[in-house]
Amino acid sequence: MTQMASLGGDTSADNVESGGGATIAPRAYRLAEAPGPLERAELEAIDAWWRAANYLAVGQIYLMSNPLLREPLEPEHIKPRLLGHFGTVPGLNLVWAHANRAIRQRDSNAVFVAGPGHGGPGPNACAWLEGTYSELYSHIPRDADGMGALFAQFSFPGGVPSHCAPETPGSFHEGGELGYSLLHAFGAALDNPDLTVFCVVGDGEAETGPLATSWHANKFLSPVRDGAVLPILALNQYKIANPTILARIPESELLTLMRGYGYEPIVVAGSDPANVHQEMAIAVDTALDRIAEIQSTARAGTDGVRPSWPMIVLRTPKGWTCPPVVDGDPVEGTFRAHQVPLAAARTNDGHRAVLEQWLRSYQPEQLFDESGRPVSALRELVPDGDRRLSANPIANGGMLVRDLRLPDWRSYGVEVREPGATQHEATRVLGAWLRDVTARNADNFLTFAPDELASNRLQDILQVTGRNWQAEIGEFDVDLDRTGRVIEVLSEHMCQGLLEGYLLTGRHGVFTCYEAFIHIIDAMFNQHAKWLDASAAVPWRQPIASLNYLLSSHVWRQDHNGFTHQDPGFLDVVLNKKPSIVRVYLPPDANTLLSTYDHCLRSRHYVNVVVAGKQPQADWLSVSDAAVHCARGAGIWGWAGQNDDPGTAPDVVLACAGDVPTLETLAAAAILRARLPELRLRVVNVVDLMRLQPSDEHPHGLSDSEFDTLFTRDRPVIFAFHGYPWLIHRLTYQRTNHSELHVRGYKEKGTTTTPFDMVMLNDLDRYHLVMDVIDRVPTLREKAAGLRQEMVDARWNARAWTREHGEDLPAVANWTWPNLSL
Amino acid sequence: MTQMASLGGDTSADNVESGGGATIAPRAYRLAEAPGPLERAELEAIDAWWRAANYLAVGQIYLMSNPLLREPLEPEHIKPRLLGHFGTVPGLNLVWAHANRAIRQRDSNAVFVAGPGHGGPGPNACAWLEGTYSELYSHIPRDADGMGALFAQFSFPGGVPSHCAPETPGSFHEGGELGYSLLHAFGAALDNPDLTVFCVVGDGEAETGPLATSWHANKFLSPVRDGAVLPILALNQYKIANPTILARIPESELLTLMRGYGYEPIVVAGSDPANVHQEMAIAVDTALDRIAEIQSTARAGTDGVRPSWPMIVLRTPKGWTCPPVVDGDPVEGTFRAHQVPLAAARTNDGHRAVLEQWLRSYQPEQLFDESGRPVSALRELVPDGDRRLSANPIANGGMLVRDLRLPDWRSYGVEVREPGATQHEATRVLGAWLRDVTARNADNFLTFAPDELASNRLQDILQVTGRNWQAEIGEFDVDLDRTGRVIEVLSEHMCQGLLEGYLLTGRHGVFTCYEAFIHIIDAMFNQHAKWLDASAAVPWRQPIASLNYLLSSHVWRQDHNGFTHQDPGFLDVVLNKKPSIVRVYLPPDANTLLSTYDHCLRSRHYVNVVVAGKQPQADWLSVSDAAVHCARGAGIWGWAGQNDDPGTAPDVVLACAGDVPTLETLAAAAILRARLPELRLRVVNVVDLMRLQPSDEHPHGLSDSEFDTLFTRDRPVIFAFHGYPWLIHRLTYQRTNHSELHVRGYKEKGTTTTPFDMVMLNDLDRYHLVMDVIDRVPTLREKAAGLRQEMVDARWNARAWTREHGEDLPAVANWTWPNLSL
Repeated sequence: MTQMASLGGDTSADNVESGGGATIAPRAYRLAEAPGPLERAELEAIDAWWRAANYLAVGQIYLMSNPLLREPLEPEHIKPRLLGHFGTVPGLNLVWAHANRAIRQRDSNAVFVAGPGHGGPGPNACAWLEGTYSELYSHIPRDADGMGALFAQFSFPGGVPSHCAPETPGSFHEGGELGYSLLHAFGAALDNPDLTVFCVVGDGEAETGPLATSWHANKFLSPVRDGAVLPILALNQYKIANPTILARIPESELLTLMRGYGYEPIVVAGSDPANVHQEMAIAVDTALDRIAEIQSTARAGTDGVRPSWPMIVLRTPKGWTCPPVVDGDPVEGTFRAHQVPLAAARTNDGHRAVLEQWLRSYQPEQLFDESGRPVSALRELVPDGDRRLSANPIANGGMLVRDLRLPDWRSYGVEVREPGATQHEATRVLGAWLRDVTARNADNFLTFAPDELASNRLQDILQVTGRNWQAEIGEFDVDLDRTGRVIEVLSEHMCQGLLEGYLLTGRHGVFTCYEAFIHIIDAMFNQHAKWLDASAAVPWRQPIASLNYLLSSHVWRQDHNGFTHQDPGFLDVVLNKKPSIVRVYLPPDANTLLSTYDHCLRSRHYVNVVVAGKQPQADWLSVSDAAVHCARGAGIWGWAGQNDDPGTAPDVVLACAGDVPTLETLAAAAILRARLPELRLRVVNVVDLMRLQPSDEHPHGLSDSEFDTLFTRDRPVIFAFHGYPWLIHRLTYQRTNHSELHVRGYKEKGTTTTPFDMVMLNDLDRYHLVMDVIDRVPTLREKAAGLRQEMVDARWNARAWTREHGEDLPAVANWTWPNLSL
Repeated sequence: MTQMASLGGDTSADNVESGGGATIAPRAYRLAEAPGPLERAELEAIDAWWRAANYLAVGQIYLMSNPLLREPLEPEHIKPRLLGHFGTVPGLNLVWAHANRAIRQRDSNAVFVAGPGHGGPGPNACAWLEGTYSELYSHIPRDADGMGALFAQFSFPGGVPSHCAPETPGSFHEGGELGYSLLHAFGAALDNPDLTVFCVVGDGEAETGPLATSWHANKFLSPVRDGAVLPILALNQYKIANPTILARIPESELLTLMRGYGYEPIVVAGSDPANVHQEMAIAVDTALDRIAEIQSTARAGTDGVRPSWPMIVLRTPKGWTCPPVVDGDPVEGTFRAHQVPLAAARTNDGHRAVLEQWLRSYQPEQLFDESGRPVSALRELVPDGDRRLSANPIANGGMLVRDLRLPDWRSYGVEVREPGATQHEATRVLGAWLRDVTARNADNFLTFAPDELASNRLQDILQVTGRNWQAEIGEFDVDLDRTGRVIEVLSEHMCQGLLEGYLLTGRHGVFTCYEAFIHIIDAMFNQHAKWLDASAAVPWRQPIASLNYLLSSHVWRQDHNGFTHQDPGFLDVVLNKKPSIVRVYLPPDANTLLSTYDHCLRSRHYVNVVVAGKQPQADWLSVSDAAVHCARGAGIWGWAGQNDDPGTAPDVVLACAGDVPTLETLAAAAILRARLPELRLRVVNVVDLMRLQPSDEHPHGLSDSEFDTLFTRDRPVIFAFHGYPWLIHRLTYQRTNHSELHVRGYKEKGTTTTPFDMVMLNDLDRYHLVMDVIDRVPTLREKAAGLRQEMVDARWNARAWTREHGEDLPAVANWTWPNLSL
C-alpha cells in the first residue's frame, strides 16, 4: 500500500497554480474517491499507468532531451518540428491500461488495435512501460537514457512514424489511412478461439465506408471457432477540424445504431479520470464476462441464435489532460487538441511554461525512479511475457506462420496430349485443388469473395466446407455453415481487410474478385504493400504469408456486364509498389494456373496478383510443360512457331500474356503458318509479368541478354497483352528492342457482348494480329498484301455476323489449334 | 371503368394450367380485393402498369422477335445468349409505378435511382411505357415494331447494356459497380429544394462500404435548401449466390439499424401483388407527406432539430412473378432468380413452354393494343412531359448546367517581380478565389473534403459560408452552418459520390483530398470516367461540368505522416482512361494554380486532376506569365536556363513537372549556372501532363516537332517528376529523344520527416540533379568531376544535418533563386 500510495494521482490546485503568471493553465485533475469496483490502490495504480503513458506520449511529441524534466525546460530541449497527434492518445492509453488489468485477472490472450490516426505515441509509450520496446530495441532501454532515446526518435529523421506501424511492438495494424481497424481485428480473431482483440475505433475513421460496413463482420465471427473482438468506439468528438457525426447525434441514436449493427453497447463517459476508470473497469469486466458467456454457451453446442456481442462507447475529451485553454482558445475537448496542442513550445516562453506544467501535472517523479525506470508498482501491472499486448506473437504473425499442407497440384492438372485439343475452365480446375487445400488446412486457410466464389468457378471448395454465416439461414439458402471456411460478403473492403487481419496474424488465404472491381481496394492494397515493405526492414518482424489475389471475370469476358466491368488497371497500381513485394502472373491455361497458385501459396511476404479466366479455354500445356514454363516465367512455345531456329532471330515474334491474348495469338500463328509457310515465326508466352522488367529493377527481371534471346534485338515483336498496353512499354522501355515492340491491349472503347467482338474492338483479334505482322515485317508488305485484305474482310464479316446473330461466328467461336499430328 | 376493368389483373388457375404437361409451372397471381387506399380501378391500373413493365423486361431478356407473342414461341424467337438480371426487376418496376402515382397526384418533381445491379430491363421498360424511349430513339417507337426493337437491342452487340447506363432515359446513375446509389441520390437533392429522389437501394449493394456509410448523408441534407431523398431498401434477400446480411437479421434489428442511421423506416412486405400495392401506396403517401411536413416546418424557420427522414423497407421475393420452380429447384424467391431464371429457353422445349406461360401470365393482350401500343389506360398513368421519371431534365444534367460566375483569377494572383523572390502557399491563394467563386454561385457550386479543407489551406472559403452540418452543434464547434456550401465528412467515398450526384444533375464542384488517399475512390473515378465517355456518345445527353480534384498534402510533403501518406499513383489510374475525358495538371506555383483552376472550372465533361502543394513555396511566374505558360501547358523557362539559344539545341535539358520537382530543378540550375557558366542549359516546365503524349493519342498532345523543339532530338533530358517516374516514360516512349530521357521521381522508399531529406531519399534533390547532368553530358564528365564530388559531399552533409537537428540544413531550407537583377 505504501508503494501504491506513493503513486499519488491527485494533482492539487497548488501544483497547478505554480505555473505562476502563465496565461495558459493546464487543468488540475484529481483522483477522487470515486465509487466503483476498483479499490483505491488499484485505481491509483491504473491511473498511474495512464499518467505515465500520457507523460511518455507528450514527451515523444515535444522533447529532444531532458526527458525526466530534471532541469527546467529550455528551448533546446524541444524539437524544432512538433509532429504526432496527442488528441487520441489519452483514450488509447486508457484502453490499454484497462485491458492490462483484464489480462492479468483473466490470463487473457489479447492483442490491441489502435484505429485512430497518428496515435503512435500511446502504444509506443505502453510498449516501453511493458519493457517490450527495450527488448526489441536494445538502444532504447527502460531507463532515463532509453526514455530520452524514445522521445528523440519519435517522428524524427531516421526514427519512427507518428502512427502505429511495423516498428511498433504489438501492432499489426498501421495507423495511416483510416477505416480498417475493425476488419483487421475481426480477421485476427478468425480461427483464434481464445483470442480477444481490443479494437479502438476512432469516431473519425468510423465515418469511412470500410469501417461503416465492417461492423457487420459480426455476422461472420463464429463464437465456437473464432475468438472475440471488443470494439471500443473512441468518441472524442473531433477530427482535424470538424466534429464527428457519431458524436453529434443523440446518444440514444448512436446506441440504436450499434444495436442495429448487432452489438450491445456499454457507455463509458466523462472527463473525471477517477470516475472514468471506475466506469471503464465495469465496462471491460461486463464485456469480457459477456464474451465468455457467449463463447461457453456456443461451445457447449447450443447453436442457432447469433449473439449480440458487447462493445464499448468511450466518450472522453479530445486531448484529455492537455491544457484546457491556450491563447484564449479552448483546446482540451476541442478539435484544437487533435494534433499538437501547444504549437510554439520552442519559441514561445508562455507555451513552453505551460508545456512544462502540463508534463509535470502527470507527476513523473512518482512514476519513474531515479534511474528513469517505471517504479515497481507500474512494472507490477505488466502482464507476463507474451501476455503483454506489446509482445503477443499473434501481432507478429510471421513468428507463427506455418507452411500450408499443399496437395500435389500435378495430380489436379488436366491431361494435355496436344496443345489446344481440349478445353477447361481454368479457375474451376484450380477450385478442385483449393478445395483440398481448404480441407487439409482446416484452421489455417480461408477464402474470401464478394459474392463471386461460384461466379468465378471456385465452388468446388464448397464440397468440403460451407460459407461462413452467423446470421439467420433461410429456407432456400444453400451452402451456409456456422464454421464455413469461405467468407462471402458483397464488400471488397471487408474481404480485403479480413484477409489482411488473418494474414498479419500468421495465417494464409486467397481473395477472389472480379478484375475490374478489385480497384475498390486499391488504397488498401497500397497500405498493405507498404506494411510488407516497411516490416521487412524491422529485424524482429518475421515474413508473413503472401496476400494472394485471384482475379477472374476479367476484362476480356464481360459479355453482358460491359464497359463498367472492364478494367485491367489494378496491375498498374500493383506495379507502382516496391519490386521486392509485388508479383503479377497471367497464366494462359488451367495447368499453368495450378502451377502458379502452388507457387503463390508457398511464398512469403509478397502480394501475388493472378489473373485467370473462368470461361472454357483451350488447354495449351501439359502438367510437366506447365511446371517448366511457369518456373521460367516466360518462354518460347516452339510448337506454336514456325521455322524458329533458336540460334537465329526469326522474322517476327508474336508475344502474349494473358489467356485471351494467348488464344488470339495462337490463332494468328495458325493463320500465318497455313498461309506463309516460309515465315520464320516465334511465339513467346509470358506468365510472370515481372520477367519483362530489367533484372536490376525487379528480382524476377530477365537480364538483357536473356530478354534479347527471347524477343530478339531488332525484329518486330507483336505483343498481345491482357491489360492496358502502355504497361508493357513501361516495363520494357530500357530493352534493346523496345523500338520494335508493338503492343495490343485493352483501351477504353465502350462495350460489346460477345467475346470475339470484344477483342476486335481492341484490335487484339487474330486477324488484326496477322495484319500487324504483315505491316511490321518489311518483306511481307507486298508479298502478303492479299492475305492482309483477307484479314480485313474477315474482321468485317465477323463483326456483321455478331451484329446479326448476337453471338460470334462459329468458325471463330469453335476454332481450335490445328495440331498437325492429330 | 370499362377500360380499367379490361386491364384484368387476376391470372386464373385455368390460365396457368394451360401450360399442359410442362413440369415447370409459373405461379398464378391473383389481384384480390385487398384492403387499402387504392380503389379497385386504381389498383388494377397500377398493377397493369407493373405487369406491362415486367412483361417488357422479360421480353428484353429473352426475345429477339415475336414480341407480343402473336405466334407460338419458337426457338428462333429467343436470343442465343440470355443476359441481364430479372431478379431485381419487379421491385424496381413496382417502385416506379408507385412513384408515378405520387407524381401525378402531387405534381412532384422527381427522379429515380436504380441501385441494384443489372436491373436495366426495368427502367428501360418504364421509359418505353412513358414514351420517352421512343422520343429519344426514333427507331424504337411505342408500338409493336418498337417493342421488338427494344427487346432485340437489349444486351445485344451494338445494343444497350444490361444495367442502367447513359443510354437509359431518366438515369443519372450507372448500375455497374455497386454502392453509390444513395450518394448519387443525395448529391442530386442538394440545392434542388423541390426535388424528390426515389432511390432504390439493393440489399446486396447495401453491404458495400460506400453504401453503408452513405446512409449518414442525411446529416448533410438541409430540409430548407435541399430536396428530399426517399430511400427504398429493396430487400429481395439474395445476391448472386448468397443471402444478404440485411435480409438475415431479424426485422427488428434492421429497423433499429435504420433508426440508428437517422431514418424512420416504413415496412412493405409480401408476395401477394394486391396487398403489396396497397401497402406500397400507403408507404409512399406516408413518406411523401412526412417529407412535405419536414420541409414546410423547416422552411417556416423553425431551425434546430434534425428531422428523421422516412425510408421504405420493401421486402418482396427475388424474381417476383417468375416461375416458382424450375427443374425441381425453387427459383422465385431464391438466389436462382437473380439472373436468368430459365437458362435453356432456346434449346429446351420445356423451358420454352414455361417462358411462354410466364410471359402470358402478365396478360399482354390486355396491356398492349393491336398496334402494340400500351393501352390508353396505361398511357393515362404517365405523368406529363418533364414530370416523367424517364424525362426529367435533372437526370440529364448537361441540359441544365449553367456557366459559373467566375471572378477574374488575375486579381487574386500574387505579385511576382522576380522569379522566386517571394513565397506563398499556393492552395491558400487558390482558396481566396474559391471563396469568391462560392459566394458568387450560391446555389450552383459546392466544395467537398474529407476533413481536409483547412489542412489543404482552402479555409478562406469559410469566410463566406460554413460547413454544411445538420447534426447537433457542440459548444466548441466552429464554422458549422445549416446551409453551408462546404461538405466535410471523413469519407472519400461520400465526398466523391455526393459530388458526382451533384455534377450529374447539372451543377459544379471541387473535391479536395490528400493525394495518397484519393486512391480510396479509384474505382469510383473509373466508373465516373466511363460514364462521361459513354454518355458523350449518346446524342441526347449534354456535357456536364467537369469533376475537379485538388490534390494537396502531396507525396513530397508528408513530413511526419510518412510512408503511408506517400502515393502519387492516382495519376497512373487516371491516365488509363479515355484521353478525351482526362486531364492532369501540375502547376508549380500559386499563379499557375489559379490559372489552371480557372480553366478547369470553365471546362465541361472532363475529369481534371490538379496536384498542388499547401506549403510555402516560391512564386515563379507573374500573373501574365502564368496565363501564357498554362495556356501552352509546357514551355521553356528562358530566365532559368543559360546560353539557351532557342534556335539550337542546348547541352542538356532540365525538365520538371510538379511544385517540389520544379524547386529542386531550379536550385540545380542555379548551381550549374554559377559553376559552369559556359554550359548551354535549358529549363522546361510542364504544367499540363497530357502535353507529353503524342498528339494522336491525346487532344492536348504536342506534335513530335513541337516536342522536339522543347526537349531536343538528341540531348540528355533530366526530368524531375512529381509522381512515379515510369509514368513519364509511358507518355513519351514514342518520342524521338526518348532514349535520352532520364526521369527522377518517387519510388517506394520508406519514410522521412523533413522535406529535403525526402527528395534526397528519391534522388530528386538539386545535388543529385546536378550529378545527373554531369553524368549525362559527355563533355562534363571530366571537366566537372570536382563539382560532382562536391555534390556528393553536399548530400551527405545535408543528410547528417537532418539526422542531428531534425530539420533541413538552413542553406537548403532557406535557399532562394539568385535573381541577378535583384
